[in-house]
Amino acid sequence: MPKQVLVVAAHPDDEILGMGGTIARHVKQGDEVTVVWVTDGSSTQYPGRPDIVERKYVEAAAALETLGVRKWIKGGLPDMRLDTVAHVEINRVVEEAIAQTEADTVYCVHPDVNRDHRAVFESAAVAARPRPGSRVGRFLTYAPMSSNEWTPAQDSTFIPTWFVDISAEIDAKLSAFACYDTENRDWPHPRSAQAIRASAQLWGSVIGVPAAEPFLLVREIER
Amino acid sequence: MPKQVLVVAAHPDDEILGMGGTIARHVKQGDEVTVVWVTDGSSTQYPGRPDIVERKYVEAAAALETLGVRKWIKGGLPDMRLDTVAHVEINRVVEEAIAQTEADTVYCVHPDVNRDHRAVFESAAVAARPRPGSRVGRFLTYAPMSSNEWTPAQDSTFIPTWFVDISAEIDAKLSAFACYDTENRDWPHPRSAQAIRASAQLWGSVIGVPAAEPFLLVREIER
Amino acid sequence: MPKQVLVVAAHPDDEILGMGGTIARHVKQGDEVTVVWVTDGSSTQYPGRPDIVERKYVEAAAALETLGVRKWIKGGLPDMRLDTVAHVEINRVVEEAIAQTEADTVYCVHPDVNRDHRAVFESAAVAARPRPGSRVGRFLTYAPMSSNEWTPAQDSTFIPTWFVDISAEIDAKLSAFACYDTENRDWPHPRSAQAIRASAQLWGSVIGVPAAEPFLLVREIER
Amino acid sequence: MPKQVLVVAAHPDDEILGMGGTIARHVKQGDEVTVVWVTDGSSTQYPGRPDIVERKYVEAAAALETLGVRKWIKGGLPDMRLDTVAHVEINRVVEEAIAQTEADTVYCVHPDVNRDHRAVFESAAVAARPRPGSRVGRFLTYAPMSSNEWTPAQDSTFIPTWFVDISAEIDAKLSAFACYDTENRDWPHPRSAQAIRASAQLWGSVIGVPAAEPFLLVREIER
Amino acid sequence: MPKQVLVVAAHPDDEILGMGGTIARHVKQGDEVTVVWVTDGSSTQYPGRPDIVERKYVEAAAALETLGVRKWIKGGLPDMRLDTVAHVEINRVVEEAIAQTEADTVYCVHPDVNRDHRAVFESAAVAARPRPGSRVGRFLTYAPMSSNEWTPAQDSTFIPTWFVDISAEIDAKLSAFACYDTENRDWPHPRSAQAIRASAQLWGSVIGVPAAEPFLLVREIER
Amino acid sequence: MPKQVLVVAAHPDDEILGMGGTIARHVKQGDEVTVVWVTDGSSTQYPGRPDIVERKYVEAAAALETLGVRKWIKGGLPDMRLDTVAHVEINRVVEEAIAQTEADTVYCVHPDVNRDHRAVFESAAVAARPRPGSRVGRFLTYAPMSSNEWTPAQDSTFIPTWFVDISAEIDAKLSAFACYDTENRDWPHPRSAQAIRASAQLWGSVIGVPAAEPFLLVREIER
Repeated sequence: MPKQVLVVAAHPDDEILGMGGTIARHVKQGDEVTVVWVTDGSSTQYPGRPDIVERKYVEAAAALETLGVRKWIKGGLPDMRLDTVAHVEINRVVEEAIAQTEADTVYCVHPDVNRDHRAVFESAAVAARPRPGSRVGRFLTYAPMSSNEWTPAQDSTFIPTWFVDISAEIDAKLSAFACYDTENRDWPHPRSAQAIRASAQLWGSVIGVPAAEPFLLVREIER
Repeated sequence: MPKQVLVVAAHPDDEILGMGGTIARHVKQGDEVTVVWVTDGSSTQYPGRPDIVERKYVEAAAALETLGVRKWIKGGLPDMRLDTVAHVEINRVVEEAIAQTEADTVYCVHPDVNRDHRAVFESAAVAARPRPGSRVGRFLTYAPMSSNEWTPAQDSTFIPTWFVDISAEIDAKLSAFACYDTENRDWPHPRSAQAIRASAQLWGSVIGVPAAEPFLLVREIER
Repeated sequence: MPKQVLVVAAHPDDEILGMGGTIARHVKQGDEVTVVWVTDGSSTQYPGRPDIVERKYVEAAAALETLGVRKWIKGGLPDMRLDTVAHVEINRVVEEAIAQTEADTVYCVHPDVNRDHRAVFESAAVAARPRPGSRVGRFLTYAPMSSNEWTPAQDSTFIPTWFVDISAEIDAKLSAFACYDTENRDWPHPRSAQAIRASAQLWGSVIGVPAAEPFLLVREIER
Repeated sequence: MPKQVLVVAAHPDDEILGMGGTIARHVKQGDEVTVVWVTDGSSTQYPGRPDIVERKYVEAAAALETLGVRKWIKGGLPDMRLDTVAHVEINRVVEEAIAQTEADTVYCVHPDVNRDHRAVFESAAVAARPRPGSRVGRFLTYAPMSSNEWTPAQDSTFIPTWFVDISAEIDAKLSAFACYDTENRDWPHPRSAQAIRASAQLWGSVIGVPAAEPFLLVREIER
Repeated sequence: MPKQVLVVAAHPDDEILGMGGTIARHVKQGDEVTVVWVTDGSSTQYPGRPDIVERKYVEAAAALETLGVRKWIKGGLPDMRLDTVAHVEINRVVEEAIAQTEADTVYCVHPDVNRDHRAVFESAAVAARPRPGSRVGRFLTYAPMSSNEWTPAQDSTFIPTWFVDISAEIDAKLSAFACYDTENRDWPHPRSAQAIRASAQLWGSVIGVPAAEPFLLVREIER
Repeated sequence: MPKQVLVVAAHPDDEILGMGGTIARHVKQGDEVTVVWVTDGSSTQYPGRPDIVERKYVEAAAALETLGVRKWIKGGLPDMRLDTVAHVEINRVVEEAIAQTEADTVYCVHPDVNRDHRAVFESAAVAARPRPGSRVGRFLTYAPMSSNEWTPAQDSTFIPTWFVDISAEIDAKLSAFACYDTENRDWPHPRSAQAIRASAQLWGSVIGVPAAEPFLLVREIER
């Protein structure tokens, strides 16, 4: 039976950097995938430039289409400023996305040094809690590059417990990320094609395959 | 496709107390389930009494049959004394069980205040490591009562991340445990029927069902 | 000598769900117990409905009276929105409650997936710090159901270190919770009588009694 | 009602360095205090020198008498070599000490960089587990100097949660430690009078008194 | 080659209490030291009293001059209220201080029970992240007294991994702190000369010298 | 001033897999580097085959010579069986190596899923403790591939805090590992050239350089 998958991202590009290969795999398996970007990803860095905000959404759509995803939700909250938004407002965005997609599988950006990531995770943890009637049976976090690896060790470290073989999807992941002109950086920046490939190879070697993406399981329910 | 399930226990009864309901559920789903008891469970408590060791195995077999399990492996190492056995010997027992069953799913007793549990877990962590060629794709720990809950908080606490609905299997679990005359205790001992039922109810309420068993995911691999 | 006990709750009902039995026990022992509800518990869920806020306070008072408690303090801050209130304002509510009651024993809701709980705990940690002149000698957290058990495992998990036998008080706890018409849910919701009883039984079995409540010690000072 | 206090030490002098002041305080309060030294404290460092082993016991007795303690138990296991002793043998020493003293309050050396300390703690955790019928209601660890502070940070760190004012007992603690000719070192060694005093002052300042000793609560049961 | 050292403090006096000796040592070694106080340290406690704010700055300058430091930066944000300031505003203060000083070595107050400390640390963790082009090679936290030691154990505990011998600088540290009339307290308050000396002695004994200051390494990069 | 560097390895090849690049860098900087292999690395896997043990030592010597290292120490204890060796015997090997080399900088294999690694680390933690007179000022752990990444997440995870740029040494590292015919595996095994390169690239991108090795600081002392 196809899964209803919701990928919760703080900013457009989180979902590709953290789990582009796994998204492609879900699509291949016939699952329904929706991405929700809680913030617009650009408005604080570029105040008064709606064109840049819009450009990032164009890139984001192109990247998702590369992976075969056709559904996305724009939360529209201000990027880099989720600490100034009431928690209940962020909750609302994630809760509505879960309700609308009837998600049984939720992936959320891991709470790391980026405060937007933490705010979004806290709301997802509330929205995905397994109260009677909830359909969410699987809740995982993913770790986009250029944020997670810069988190102080004593914070909520991303120590993965779940690994997905993306040997057949690593090229699609790189193609998808290539759509993000505004986010690509030169090697050895973590947001470069070479760093993304090295990461996939390293995690692949951990589980004995050529390429993999790591996740951390928050909760799995076998109903 | 049916799963090849291996349940690694330090002592006969760990597997019932920790995951009797989930074992019954696997059987219903058509999975192949094998239990390996690394120790005999009684030889240290009752030295020079092979009859008691034998009696526990009889109880253990009856309990498993109650759940529909027909395969078990006796490691035969001395109970309460695994710290005196070379680590490689314990590894060998678990590695052979994994090889023999071609297990893709491994459950192991959680490393807790009981040193046998810790020794067995350490060997399972080695035996189930995801080196190239390994078939093990899922590795979970379970927490038998009257041990895990007495573990000092700063030790490797069992904080579950995986829950299995056993509403339809809780009665089978209690019937299976009733086979263990030597291990049953009166309420309010943790190894009493009432305590087992209360535990199932509490974890059930956590995920919104009448009864559940908790697990901790060590590693999941989607190949 | 009777103790001066302050129970810090984020919302009315936290104190019953988390420690209703222990409150009853304190009253029996002749201790002075005061509860402070930092928020009104309803204003965000039911905006523009002061009648519902008022109704919850009526239920809360009835519940406490069931346990023999006659003192409570209404902090009056907005529920589900403590992240929008300045930390110093929440501090002020808790500090005044400690000063007014001359508390030597402070119980606070555990910082869990509920952000109000975290905000209240952070203020209690400041207010109860053992600077010279402080009377607070014991500082514990308690874990109300339907919140703590839904906290991601990597967050500040409630791993209890302190247990109170409430075998003689479990019925009073259930009677007190029954006063909360607005909060009672059907089994298997965690806020149902059956879930509360199962929890008390499970923790009871951990310490060898029919019913218990768990706590986590933050700090004890023997002066 | 007087308490039955058991202090579990791996080596003679652990109990003075870790909690000499608190021992003196228990004696003043009329509690019964017994110390059990699981090892002889010297036989590995000085093989073939029973005189040195004996001398340390003489010092140890003198130190305890300084604090008013008249009961001690010699476990007699080899020091620095508890990893070569079967866990059940160490368990037996601690279990017999608990049984013999009918202890309700148990203090144990904290599991730190010293492997004997870890072995002893693991046995105490088993022996003091709260199974039905156990009298042990309080279980704390203490941290002797020149061991705990040299423990790698990622190990089981001693982060105290319990503090005892020893302002009136710090001099007795120093007098007691002075009995240990074989263990006294010159400042700035941690086993010097000045280091012991600095430690008491620092922990004192944490709780607003001139001198204190820190502990970590493993478990408290209010029956 | 002299180092460019930036000390990030939430409030004036954090830097002296936490690392006055190490600052003096850097100055002796010819390093360039700059202190940035993110808040004014007084405006919330004394609203409408700019004279008190100013007085604290005079004390702070005198204290730094005692240690030979001549550069400081006033962030000017409101003390005790950083949770009400947008994270990006705090980031800006720290990022500008790093840019302006071209710091290769950053010390920041440890995230502890004081929320201002946590907010400042979170911004420093962002500002000091090792992205390509960053000059920051060393990032440590320090622990000012009367805050860190009052942090609940389950929070981000300061477990030091880095120790600096300040045997030759402890007197300078005490002289520097003596400049803070508004912050000095009587013994046994942690902000008293005797408590500061006891702390230096205790940490000194840990590494075998008469006085030391402890730090926690967040990140070291050998380029 | 040149450093006296001691690299503590459980088995020959740990030092290359974990820190071959950093070893080469130390040599270039004129530091004295000695490697101690606590076990022979082969005797348990290949009982009765001294030729294989000898062959591994030949490979190990060749690998070190590739990096310019000319000093090594053979501890000669049995591999995969350190749990059967008394802790004091392992201590002795490491203590003698520290004494003999007058090491000021100690690197040790991280305690991970491999029990030999844990045993060796525990001894190094004792041998390198900063008692008065110790010369050891820096103590780091390193993480050899094909062991550390297979460690259960709840164990002592290697979360690095120290990074060394090995962009100029990555080729030497690969050449050194190529000497180990007995340990090389085909991609995607972690002990393949491609996996080693991917790891160096990924950690490099974390700190903005083409290749890096990660370490975890246990203790740094600035005397």
